[in-house]
Amino acid sequence: MTEIRLGMVGGGQGAFIGAVHRIAARLDGEYRLVAGALSSTPEKAKASGAALGLDPARCYGDYREMAQREARRKDGVQAVAIVTPNHMHAGPAIEFLKRGIHVICDKPLTATMAEAKKLAKVAEASQALFILTHNYTGYPMVRQARAMVARGDLGRLRLVQVEYVQDWLTEAAEATGSKQAEWRTDPARSGAGGALGDIGTHAYNLAAFVSGMEPEALAADLAAMVPGRRLDDNAHVLLRYAGGAKGMLWASQVAPGNENGLRLRIYGEKGGLDWAQEDPNRLWFTAFGQPKQLLTRNGAGADPAGQRVSRVPGGHPEGYLEAFATIYSEAARAIRARDAGEAVPEEVVYPTLKDGLAGMRFVEACVQSAKRNAAWVTL
Amino acid sequence: MTEIRLGMVGGGQGAFIGAVHRIAARLDGEYRLVAGALSSTPEKAKASGAALGLDPARCYGDYREMAQREARRKDGVQAVAIVTPNHMHAGPAIEFLKRGIHVICDKPLTATMAEAKKLAKVAEASQALFILTHNYTGYPMVRQARAMVARGDLGRLRLVQVEYVQDWLTEAAEATGSKQAEWRTDPARSGAGGALGDIGTHAYNLAAFVSGMEPEALAADLAAMVPGRRLDDNAHVLLRYAGGAKGMLWASQVAPGNENGLRLRIYGEKGGLDWAQEDPNRLWFTAFGQPKQLLTRNGAGADPAGQRVSRVPGGHPEGYLEAFATIYSEAARAIRARDAGEAVPEEVVYPTLKDGLAGMRFVEACVQSAKRNAAWVTL
Amino acid sequence: MTEIRLGMVGGGQGAFIGAVHRIAARLDGEYRLVAGALSSTPEKAKASGAALGLDPARCYGDYREMAQREARRKDGVQAVAIVTPNHMHAGPAIEFLKRGIHVICDKPLTATMAEAKKLAKVAEASQALFILTHNYTGYPMVRQARAMVARGDLGRLRLVQVEYVQDWLTEAAEATGSKQAEWRTDPARSGAGGALGDIGTHAYNLAAFVSGMEPEALAADLAAMVPGRRLDDNAHVLLRYAGGAKGMLWASQVAPGNENGLRLRIYGEKGGLDWAQEDPNRLWFTAFGQPKQLLTRNGAGADPAGQRVSRVPGGHPEGYLEAFATIYSEAARAIRARDAGEAVPEEVVYPTLKDGLAGMRFVEACVQSAKRNAAWVTL
Amino acid sequence: MTEIRLGMVGGGQGAFIGAVHRIAARLDGEYRLVAGALSSTPEKAKASGAALGLDPARCYGDYREMAQREARRKDGVQAVAIVTPNHMHAGPAIEFLKRGIHVICDKPLTATMAEAKKLAKVAEASQALFILTHNYTGYPMVRQARAMVARGDLGRLRLVQVEYVQDWLTEAAEATGSKQAEWRTDPARSGAGGALGDIGTHAYNLAAFVSGMEPEALAADLAAMVPGRRLDDNAHVLLRYAGGAKGMLWASQVAPGNENGLRLRIYGEKGGLDWAQEDPNRLWFTAFGQPKQLLTRNGAGADPAGQRVSRVPGGHPEGYLEAFATIYSEAARAIRARDAGEAVPEEVVYPTLKDGLAGMRFVEACVQSAKRNAAWVTL
Repeated sequence: MTEIRLGMVGGGQGAFIGAVHRIAARLDGEYRLVAGALSSTPEKAKASGAALGLDPARCYGDYREMAQREARRKDGVQAVAIVTPNHMHAGPAIEFLKRGIHVICDKPLTATMAEAKKLAKVAEASQALFILTHNYTGYPMVRQARAMVARGDLGRLRLVQVEYVQDWLTEAAEATGSKQAEWRTDPARSGAGGALGDIGTHAYNLAAFVSGMEPEALAADLAAMVPGRRLDDNAHVLLRYAGGAKGMLWASQVAPGNENGLRLRIYGEKGGLDWAQEDPNRLWFTAFGQPKQLLTRNGAGADPAGQRVSRVPGGHPEGYLEAFATIYSEAARAIRARDAGEAVPEEVVYPTLKDGLAGMRFVEACVQSAKRNAAWVTL
Repeated sequence: MTEIRLGMVGGGQGAFIGAVHRIAARLDGEYRLVAGALSSTPEKAKASGAALGLDPARCYGDYREMAQREARRKDGVQAVAIVTPNHMHAGPAIEFLKRGIHVICDKPLTATMAEAKKLAKVAEASQALFILTHNYTGYPMVRQARAMVARGDLGRLRLVQVEYVQDWLTEAAEATGSKQAEWRTDPARSGAGGALGDIGTHAYNLAAFVSGMEPEALAADLAAMVPGRRLDDNAHVLLRYAGGAKGMLWASQVAPGNENGLRLRIYGEKGGLDWAQEDPNRLWFTAFGQPKQLLTRNGAGADPAGQRVSRVPGGHPEGYLEAFATIYSEAARAIRARDAGEAVPEEVVYPTLKDGLAGMRFVEACVQSAKRNAAWVTL
Repeated sequence: MTEIRLGMVGGGQGAFIGAVHRIAARLDGEYRLVAGALSSTPEKAKASGAALGLDPARCYGDYREMAQREARRKDGVQAVAIVTPNHMHAGPAIEFLKRGIHVICDKPLTATMAEAKKLAKVAEASQALFILTHNYTGYPMVRQARAMVARGDLGRLRLVQVEYVQDWLTEAAEATGSKQAEWRTDPARSGAGGALGDIGTHAYNLAAFVSGMEPEALAADLAAMVPGRRLDDNAHVLLRYAGGAKGMLWASQVAPGNENGLRLRIYGEKGGLDWAQEDPNRLWFTAFGQPKQLLTRNGAGADPAGQRVSRVPGGHPEGYLEAFATIYSEAARAIRARDAGEAVPEEVVYPTLKDGLAGMRFVEACVQSAKRNAAWVTL
Repeated sequence: MTEIRLGMVGGGQGAFIGAVHRIAARLDGEYRLVAGALSSTPEKAKASGAALGLDPARCYGDYREMAQREARRKDGVQAVAIVTPNHMHAGPAIEFLKRGIHVICDKPLTATMAEAKKLAKVAEASQALFILTHNYTGYPMVRQARAMVARGDLGRLRLVQVEYVQDWLTEAAEATGSKQAEWRTDPARSGAGGALGDIGTHAYNLAAFVSGMEPEALAADLAAMVPGRRLDDNAHVLLRYAGGAKGMLWASQVAPGNENGLRLRIYGEKGGLDWAQEDPNRLWFTAFGQPKQLLTRNGAGADPAGQRVSRVPGGHPEGYLEAFATIYSEAARAIRARDAGEAVPEEVVYPTLKDGLAGMRFVEACVQSAKRNAAWVTL
C-alpha cells in the first residue's frame, strides 16, 4: 500500500488543529505529508515546513501557488488538508478542487453561506472528493449507535438531546492574547456563529449522523455571556423533526467544569442511547423494559459498523485522534477507489459537502431565529 | 420531645406516595400518624387505617368529617398530610387550614390555577402553616449547592440547565391498568400539565431553590409522544432570567433508560455546579480554572447548610426518603415554633405556598406558550 | 399492627451508631423505643432518655437493672438494641436473652472469643432471637446479588474480591479527642482487631452473605500504619475456599479519599457481579460474553429478593438507613413469628449469632496469621 | 526531522501487538518502518511485508539474516521492534544489540530468567539502547501521578493497591483456536507466568513506576481456574516495601465483565491517588481532609510531566495507542541523543532493561512463593 501524498494549508507553528490533522493522517499509515502552505507569512511557512521535514521547495507561502505548482508535479499532492480559520476554507478548497486534488477540510464549511454556495458549485463540478472533518463521526461507538438506530433498535425516534459544552471562554480570553479565542470570537474570521459554528455544528452533525434525521425547524436563543464578546458563546436551540420527533441542542463555551462535553442521547418508541465523547469507548443502550446495557468498543455486543473502524481490543481506550484518523482513513479508502475509477465501497462513511451545507444552514437558521426572538425557522 | 399528631388524606392501600409520606413523617421521630381519611371509599379507608394500626374511630371516609371531628378533639391532629391526586389537594387543604391545622401537601399545588388561588387565600388567612413537599429540596447537597450559590461561589449566574427524565410512560401504561399512569395522564385529575405537572414542577422548583432566581419568561414546546395521550409526556422549555441568565428545562416520561433522572447544572462567571438525584450524596463543583471537586455529604468541604439536614457520615448514602423526611422535619421545627408562638428559626427551610403558586404559574405559562407555537410567555 | 416495644443499651448523647439504630427501628414503623440504659453514667442516661422522650422511670443507669425491671413489667421491652462498644456487647446481651428478651446487637459480636462463646451458649439456650446488625446485608441489590449467585447466574464461583476502605484514621484521631477513634483503637474495648473488627468483619460478612461460602483458610498481613496505634488500621487478607475459589479482602482506615468504600466483586465460571455501598442502588452484572448490565433497585431485571425489602421506585435512591432498617424489619418479622409460636417465614433473612461467631473467628484467624508472618490459618 | 529507520521482528498477519507497535511508531512521526522479519514462515513474512508496503528485499524470513544484512546497509534499520511471543525476545534482541541497533522490545523481557540474564549482559555491553514497552507508563496522567508522588503530594507512602483484571480467558480459549490464548497459556512460549507474565508484570511495573518503590518481599497465591490450563490465570499477591509500606496486586484473566481493568491506587500519610486505564485521562487525587479532585489531562491542575507527553486539549480523550506512542517517542528522543553522542535529556522517561529484569524477578518470585504455599519471598 502506497501512502497518499498529502498537502496542508494552514497548520503552521502555534496552530492547534493542524497538528491534529497531521497525526490523524499518518496514524493508519495512509498518507504522507509532502507539501504545505502552512502559513500566510512566508518565513513562518518555511520554518513550519522545515520543522516537519518537508522539502523546502514544497513549502509555499501561498495556497494558490501551491495548488498551481503541485498540480503540475508528477509527484504532486493527491489530497490537501485545509486547516485554516473558517473564512480561509473556501479559497484554498476551490483552488485544489478545480485542479482535481481531493480536499479534506476542517469544519465548519466556510464563514459565510455565500462562500459555502460558491464552494459547493466547484465541488460538485470536480472529479475530486470533498471531505469535511466532522471528526466525532469517526468514533466506533458513534458508528455503532448509528447502526443501531438504522436497524430499528430504538424504534421510531421521538427525542434527540444533544449538547456540546466547554468552559474555556468563560472569561474574555480573546482579550488576553489567546489566538484560538481571537479568531473564534471574530465574525470576520468565524462567520455568524461563535460557539454555534465552533462546536454547535459538531453537535448538530453528530445528532444528524446518528439519528439519520435532519430537523425541519428550529428555534434558537443565543447569548454572548461575556461582556464585549461579538459572537454567541452560548446557544439554546429547540428542534422539530418531520414525523413529530423533537429535540434540544445546547452549545456553550462558558460552563465552568466542562472541557469537551459532547453528549448525545436519542430515544425512540423502543429504546434509548446515550454517548459522551469524554468517555467514547462506551455506549449506553436500554431497550425499554430491559436492564441498561453498557456496550463497549470491540466488547460483547459490539456492532461491525464500529468494529471496522476500531484498532485495539475492548478496554484499551481509543480516543479523539483515533476517531479523527478514521475520517482520514475512510477518506483514503474513498480516494483510492475514486482514483482507481471504482465505486467507493458502501460501508465507507465520511462527512461531505452535504454535511457542511447542513451545518451552515443550521448556523444561519439559528442566527435568524435568535434575531426574531427565538421564533421557529424552517431548515 | 413529643411527636406531632399527624393525619393523612389519601394514601390508602395501593397508593404510592402516601407510604412515602408516612415513612418521611416518622423517620426523624417528629410525627405520629393518628388519624386518616385514607380513601374516599369508606371500606377501603377503614381497612387502610387498620393496616396502619389507627384507631378505627379516627379512620374517616371523608376528609370534611375528619377535619370537623379532629378539630374538636383535644388530642386531634395538629397537622395533616395531603397525598391525593392533584385535583383533590385544594379541597382538604382548605378544610384543615380553616381550622388552624397545619397542612403538608404533595405537589403540584392543585390541578387548576383557580383552585390554587382559592387555596392561597385561605392559607394566607390561616394561622396554620402550609408546606408543599418539593422533596428534592431536602437533599443535603442541594442545600449545599444553594448555599454556595448564595454566597457567591459561582459568581453572577449565567446558565441554569435542569432536567427530569423518566421512561415509565414510554408506552401507554394508562391504557393497561396502571393507576399511577391513569390519573397522571388525565387532565381532570392532573390539571393542564402531564409530565410538566408531575416532574417538570420538581425540576422548576429545584432550579429556583438552588439558583435563588425565578425566570422572567419562558418558551415551551410540549408533546404527547404516545398516541392518544391527553397530556404532555415531554416538555422542552427555554428560560430567560432577569439580568441575562438563560436556561433550559427538559421534562420527559418517555426516554427509555431513565428512572428518575433529575439533574441540575448551574454556571456562573466564576464556577459551575452539577448535581443529580440518582447520585445525591455528591456534588460536583468547579471554580473556573481550578480542578473539578467532588464534594460529598458530610465529607471534606461539606457546608453547614447541608450538614444540618444530614444524618449519617459521608460515604453512607442517604436517599430519597431521607430528603423527604427532611421536608417533614423542617416542617416540624416550623410547626413547633409556630405553635409555641415563636418565630421559625432562620435556618429552617421548606417549600411553601409561594413555591406552589410559582409551579402552577410555570405549568400555565408552558401550556400557553405551547399553544402559541412556543412563543415567549412572561412569568 | 402494633409496634414492638424496644429498649436500647448504649447510644446516649454523642454516640453515633445509637441514633442510626433508632432511625432504623422506626423507619418501617415496626418498633417503638420505650426504655433505655443509654449510658453507664446515670445522669447522662437520664438526659439522653429525656431527649428521646422516654418515660424517666424507664431510663436506667445500668443494663442489669433495666433487664430485671423490664422483664417484670407487663409492658416491658420485647426486644433490646445493644449499641455499646464491642467489649460491652456480651454482658447486656446475656442479661436480656436469659430473660427471653430478643436482642438486636451491633457488630462485631464481642471483643473476645471467650465472651463470644459465653454469649453463644446463652443465646442457644434462649427462646429469644439474637440478631446481629450486619447492616449491609439489608441493601436490596445485595439481596439480589445473593439470589443471583444462589440460582447459578455466575456458575461455580472462582473469585471473591472484597474491600472496605476508609480514610478517617489516616492521622492519629485517637490522640486528638475523637471518641469514636479512641475506643476503636483500644484493644480493651475493641478486641484484637482494629480496622479488622470495625469494618473488616463487615466486608467478610458481606462476601459470605452474597457468595454463600465461608473461606476455609486465610493468610493476613496486618499493619498499624499510624505510629503509636495499638490495633491494625490496614488489613491485607488472602482467602481460600473449598473447591478452589480464592479471594482477597482489604480493610483500611488510612486510605485518603475513601469514605465508606465497601465493594464486593464476585466472579464465577459464567459471570461476574460488582456492587459498591456508596452507589448501592445499582448492581453490575455480566454474563460472560454478553454486554455488561447495570441492574437497578426496582428497575428492569430486579429480583424479588431485593424488591421485597425495597420501599420506593427505581431511580429514587435508598441508602444506608433503609438498609439498616431492613435488618430491623426482618428482625420484626422474625420476632412476631417467634412470639406467635410460628416458624419464621423462609424469605426472612437477617444476620445471626452464626455470622457473629464467623466474624470473631475471622478476626482471630487474621491476628494469628499476622503473628506468624501471614501464614495460612484454617477457619 | 528525519524519521528513524525501524525494523520489526514478529508482527506478521494475524498478530495483534505488531500492529499496535507500528501505529505507535508512526503516530508522532518519529519512525518509518523499512524492514522486517515479520514471521518465521518465509512466505508469511513476505506477504506481511508486502501488505505493509515494505521493499521485498527487506522482508526477511529470519531475524538473524535481517540483523546481519541490515547492519551492513548504509540505510539499514537504526532500531528494531521485537513483537514476538516471550520466548522469542532474547534471541533477536541479542542479535541486534550486538550490532549496535537499538531494540524496542515487547514485555515481559523474556520467557526465562536465564535468557533475561544473557540478554542483560549483551545489552549492558552494547552502545545501543534497550527499551521495553511497558506502555502504560506512557499515559500522561500516569506521568502526573508519578510526579505528584515524587514531589511529596502524598507524603510518605503507606499503601499500593494495583490490579489488572480481564475476562478473556474465562473459558479455555486456548483449546478452541485462539492463537493469542495458545501461546500465552503455553509455558514453553510464555515462561513460568501466565496472567502473571502477561498482565501482572504490567501491574507490577506501573506500581513501581508511579510509587518510585520496588517491594522487598512478596507472597503469592496463584491459580489456574480453568481446568487443564498450564499456567496461572489468576494471581493474588501481597507486597511489602522497605519502610513499612504494603500492597496488594491482583492479576486475573478470568473475571467476567472486565476488559482491561488496570487500576492503581496509592495512599500516603498526606493523600491518595486513583487511576484506571479504562478512563485514562482522569486522575483522582485527595489531599487528606480536602475535597476529592478529579484532575484531567491538560486540564486545570495538570502537571508538566503529563503535559509534555500529551497531544490534544483536555476533554479530548487520548488512549492506549497514544500512550504506546509515547514510549516510542521517548525512545526516539533517547535514540537521537545517543546517536548524536549526547546525553539523553533528563525529562525523557522510558522503561528499560532494569524494568524488564524487575518484572522477570517478580514473576519468578511469585512462582517460588506459590510453590511454597504463598510464603514470603525476598525480591
